[in-house]
Amino acid sequence: MNKLFVIKVGGNIIDDEGKLRSFLKDFASISSPLQGMGAILVHGGGKIATTIGNKLGIESKYINGRRITDDATIDLVTMVYGGLINKKIVAQLQSLGCNAIGLTGADGNFIPATKRVVKEIDYGWAGDLESSKLNAQSLTLLLNNEFVPVFASLTHDEQGHILNTNADTIASTLAVALSTYYDVRLIYCFEKKGVLENIDDENSVITNINKEKYKQLLDEQKLFAGILPKIDNAFAAIDAGVHEVLIGDAADLIQNTTNKTIGTLITQ
Amino acid sequence: MNKLFVIKVGGNIIDDEGKLRSFLKDFASISSPLQGMGAILVHGGGKIATTIGNKLGIESKYINGRRITDDATIDLVTMVYGGLINKKIVAQLQSLGCNAIGLTGADGNFIPATKRVVKEIDYGWAGDLESSKLNAQSLTLLLNNEFVPVFASLTHDEQGHILNTNADTIASTLAVALSTYYDVRLIYCFEKKGVLENIDDENSVITNINKEKYKQLLDEQKLFAGILPKIDNAFAAIDAGVHEVLIGDAADLIQNTTNKTIGTLITQ
Repeated sequence: MNKLFVIKVGGNIIDDEGKLRSFLKDFASISSPLQGMGAILVHGGGKIATTIGNKLGIESKYINGRRITDDATIDLVTMVYGGLINKKIVAQLQSLGCNAIGLTGADGNFIPATKRVVKEIDYGWAGDLESSKLNAQSLTLLLNNEFVPVFASLTHDEQGHILNTNADTIASTLAVALSTYYDVRLIYCFEKKGVLENIDDENSVITNINKEKYKQLLDEQKLFAGILPKIDNAFAAIDAGVHEVLIGDAADLIQNTTNKTIGTLITQ
Repeated sequence: MNKLFVIKVGGNIIDDEGKLRSFLKDFASISSPLQGMGAILVHGGGKIATTIGNKLGIESKYINGRRITDDATIDLVTMVYGGLINKKIVAQLQSLGCNAIGLTGADGNFIPATKRVVKEIDYGWAGDLESSKLNAQSLTLLLNNEFVPVFASLTHDEQGHILNTNADTIASTLAVALSTYYDVRLIYCFEKKGVLENIDDENSVITNINKEKYKQLLDEQKLFAGILPKIDNAFAAIDAGVHEVLIGDAADLIQNTTNKTIGTLITQ
């Protein structure tokens, strides 16, 4: 296996049973070890956790768009991300002939993390990552034996505690750590077709962005502000060894694993 | 690795944080691939599921001591067994230097099951097992690479559904399926020191029972009725290839993995 797709699926898909089923069908068809292609799926599940948390009387608190993970909340997201959502995805993928294995970063110590240092804000049981600390070689044992890892957005501190960790960050960190072993395409499935020149026009996808093109787009002020951090993250992953990053719609997944992408392919 | 311990830990340990920590410390010390010994842990978590279910308004229904697993209940136990309890155990074992990997029977399709056929009682999403259907060879890949599988008592129907499955049965079925590859000792941790000649006397443990001895104990009517199904199950596992079955106290785990057992060792 040479080609590896690390795919982050967004909350808009996780929250919609029909969309999720359709996405998993596509995912199963591309994670095809026999064709020399491996795949890893990364998911969160924030809205479902919030709904179940409300029933349990666990209030969801956010600062700057990030969940504050107190004791009750880490138990909640461990249940919901690591149990309910992860195992439902695994069972569905298995029924589609995809040999999924559901994991958190604690399992096999694949993704050790550091509890976020308290500065102005105490994020609680939140984990920060360093790609060099991942046990990537150990994960290649699963990949090379035709398992398809499905990671919930949870890691651990190696001292007995589960940590809540951003799914986008887990995906990019896995992509970087595994780029030593595979030709990695990191795919972010979000709610648009790709990076748009005109945010109101889904047909204005910019198909390719390299650093030169990015500079040009910035100069021309063609990109809307919200997309800039995503592109910056993409270039960070590429600078750290990831071959390509694709930003696109979950519905276009199959096409976006080929050479004729619909979304935005970001390369060196 | 030649020796494999398949260990079922009971609810009385899972429900007690202090006892669980102490048990996991012992478990970590015996699951020592470098000494040629592998281990698998199997757990449920019924009481915690019932407590969380009550908060969520999910009523726990039992018939003949078995949980009726309706739609809401399978989601509940998937969250609690597969997420909350499983990942807490994994994180703790990892902190103890044990390379635990938390699984359900859906993961890696290790334990495919059949939804229980509805006769007089509809048990809902309950799974029944056949040892010949387990993907034991695939599991040896993990064991031989020094992973320590921790199974929540969940399986799947290969059609996209998680099934609730008795943890004792998962342990004995895993033990049978893996006896082709390893010298397996199946250990049931329960709330007594072992099989007692006198139920009121913890010092009356019968250290060894083979079939001849069992017949003799039955003739002498020395065994209390509740223990008979456990012993019958143990002999069924032995007849199917498991080398030894031990019934003992979780607190005696380390000793019970040696040749000088404290609990009751059941052999051919």
